[in-house]
Amino acid sequence: MRRDVSELTNKLDIEKISSLLSIPEHNITGALKRKTLQYVHGKQELFRFDKPVSSVEGGTALFLEPFKAIRGFPKISRTLMLYPALLKHFSSCRKVAVEEKMNGYNVRVALIGDKVVALTRGGFICPYTTEKVNYLLRRDFFHDHPDLVLCGEMVGPDSPYVPKTFYNIESLDFFTFDVRKINSGAPMSVMERRKLMDEYGIRSVHLYGEFEVGKAHEAITDIIKSFGNTLREGVVIKDPEMILPPVKYTSSLSNCADLKYAFEFYNDFGRDFFFGRVCREAFQSVEWDENEESITKRCRELGESILLPMISTIKKKKAGERIAENVQLRVKNLKTIAEFEDYLRLLGVDAVFGHPEKIGDEYLVRIRKIHQSTNDKTETILGGQMWS
Amino acid sequence: MRRDVSELTNKLDIEKISSLLSIPEHNITGALKRKTLQYVHGKQELFRFDKPVSSVEGGTALFLEPFKAIRGFPKISRTLMLYPALLKHFSSCRKVAVEEKMNGYNVRVALIGDKVVALTRGGFICPYTTEKVNYLLRRDFFHDHPDLVLCGEMVGPDSPYVPKTFYNIESLDFFTFDVRKINSGAPMSVMERRKLMDEYGIRSVHLYGEFEVGKAHEAITDIIKSFGNTLREGVVIKDPEMILPPVKYTSSLSNCADLKYAFEFYNDFGRDFFFGRVCREAFQSVEWDENEESITKRCRELGESILLPMISTIKKKKAGERIAENVQLRVKNLKTIAEFEDYLRLLGVDAVFGHPEKIGDEYLVRIRKIHQSTNDKTETILGGQMWS
Repeated sequence: MRRDVSELTNKLDIEKISSLLSIPEHNITGALKRKTLQYVHGKQELFRFDKPVSSVEGGTALFLEPFKAIRGFPKISRTLMLYPALLKHFSSCRKVAVEEKMNGYNVRVALIGDKVVALTRGGFICPYTTEKVNYLLRRDFFHDHPDLVLCGEMVGPDSPYVPKTFYNIESLDFFTFDVRKINSGAPMSVMERRKLMDEYGIRSVHLYGEFEVGKAHEAITDIIKSFGNTLREGVVIKDPEMILPPVKYTSSLSNCADLKYAFEFYNDFGRDFFFGRVCREAFQSVEWDENEESITKRCRELGESILLPMISTIKKKKAGERIAENVQLRVKNLKTIAEFEDYLRLLGVDAVFGHPEKIGDEYLVRIRKIHQSTNDKTETILGGQMWS
Repeated sequence: MRRDVSELTNKLDIEKISSLLSIPEHNITGALKRKTLQYVHGKQELFRFDKPVSSVEGGTALFLEPFKAIRGFPKISRTLMLYPALLKHFSSCRKVAVEEKMNGYNVRVALIGDKVVALTRGGFICPYTTEKVNYLLRRDFFHDHPDLVLCGEMVGPDSPYVPKTFYNIESLDFFTFDVRKINSGAPMSVMERRKLMDEYGIRSVHLYGEFEVGKAHEAITDIIKSFGNTLREGVVIKDPEMILPPVKYTSSLSNCADLKYAFEFYNDFGRDFFFGRVCREAFQSVEWDENEESITKRCRELGESILLPMISTIKKKKAGERIAENVQLRVKNLKTIAEFEDYLRLLGVDAVFGHPEKIGDEYLVRIRKIHQSTNDKTETILGGQMWS
């Protein structure tokens, strides 16, 4: 699994990559040396960019046989104040398309050789997601369009990363939100992409419609407010031609749901999750010109999203429980479980796998992801250790 | 003001400092090179340790004429779970002394040559605090005890750092919580120190009493709960002999007050203030075994402490106001104001000074401290900039 840089460099055709990705050769050799461009062992060998290098996105994966690059999915900017941000960002557009931002995990699916593979945001092949997309997506799409990458959200309860039940999906489903060219990463226009997906029976994320730039903030506010208590995450606002980069905007309930998750495992995630989400709440309240009652409700929900899960975690630990996140997978092939276990080990995730349970023609496997830092911190504080 | 390392080194007797502070000479020359030990220009020249070096505390100040070291005030550990922490930490004591932790700013006062000077936590001489202590503290104390350093809290409304009105102090007062030996920093026992202060008419922080170690958590919980809505900060729990280091514990109301301050200037302080305080809330709730009603109240207060000040800041900025913190000084000598202005400049604090207003034999000066990062961030987001 560990090879030295020179061996890796020999394996890689630096010149070819340089011209494929349009970045200088020394950026590639430099990235290899710093391990920003790193070899990933697996059934399908690849190199991945751990971070952005020049114009190449982090999460970009390079396959050698055949030689292909799947560009990392670009980070989508977030607006906290819809009206001024949309006017400023989309000033050169007449209209914007508004699609649902679903709450799952981002994957890119492409045909590499004769295999359809699913890459996570970080540019790893996830064996579980790969099994799922091979059953979910019609293979003829990739035969007809071997040069296209489907970018979409994997959503549902049988998710090892973001399990959500509220979409009424039985296991796990794939919703396309982008179709991009292999190697270049060039996107397809919104309507062309949705039409193409329809032709192949592949689901797309929901389209709320196209709105005039100057009025989109009203429509989006209505959409977000109409979510009510459904836990839907938010919207992505797009230039219909996909020339300008998209922008995202999320609901308060989804912010709070994220905080609940983060503070259940407070010492693993609390610090990173907190600040941005609090700012979203404050700016949304100001943009919506909320009255005292609405502000009070927002404050209470914020406070409860932070403290209640933490209190519950501390109580669990006090009662001698191990703090863990319960997720589940549903697979057709038991081999996928073994591969997924290897994959989590590669990522450094501490997980305890339950015994597969046969349900119909599938196996359900329950997994406990251990968040060690929260376990350790809670235990030592309960044991009388000082905070600092 | 800027001198090179060799000139500084010439000025400092490295050997003498090394033996005075009991650290190797190369630690001192290394600290000078890294500017961890730095020269501070002023009426009274000194060198200060910006960070801890070996066994020397950050904030330690070295005076050259006469040659004296005022040791940095040691960081006091915090407990989140009183009972187990006190048992563990004070296992070798029979009793602990519990004193009030007041909400002001920490200063060390000592006689250097023929001048009584006040050092801030960081080891700078604050000209304003120095004027104040020269009027507040009887000079005969320092004549009788030139080898002692008074460590205490400056508390009251006329505070450039932590202005608080709830102590019923007219301007600013000094409350001793520690008396330490010059050079070594060795502390005096609690009762001896309080008696000495009484003899010289110098105020001490309130002593709640001495309690058996195994029962102190009950007494302290009662004390903290008795604070009610008075905004008192908390307590410091001490080995009466001051052999073991003290431990601090604070009230929820004071945590929330800190958060309100931090989130009024959210982009300057929010990130750093947040996480520790949230953890204090959660563990206190568990240790106090709160019912649903108390937990709900705690959550609401936490949420309001974070969001309300942020919302108010955003609204102010939207209305075109500049986000600033208003503080005031009250001095006898106008020269002190000019010196304090220089001092804030040295610290890199952006402040706008109002015209001195004569009140009795003193001058009141209002200062607006500008928190630039919060101003800038709020302005750009309101102008339609993306969050990231």
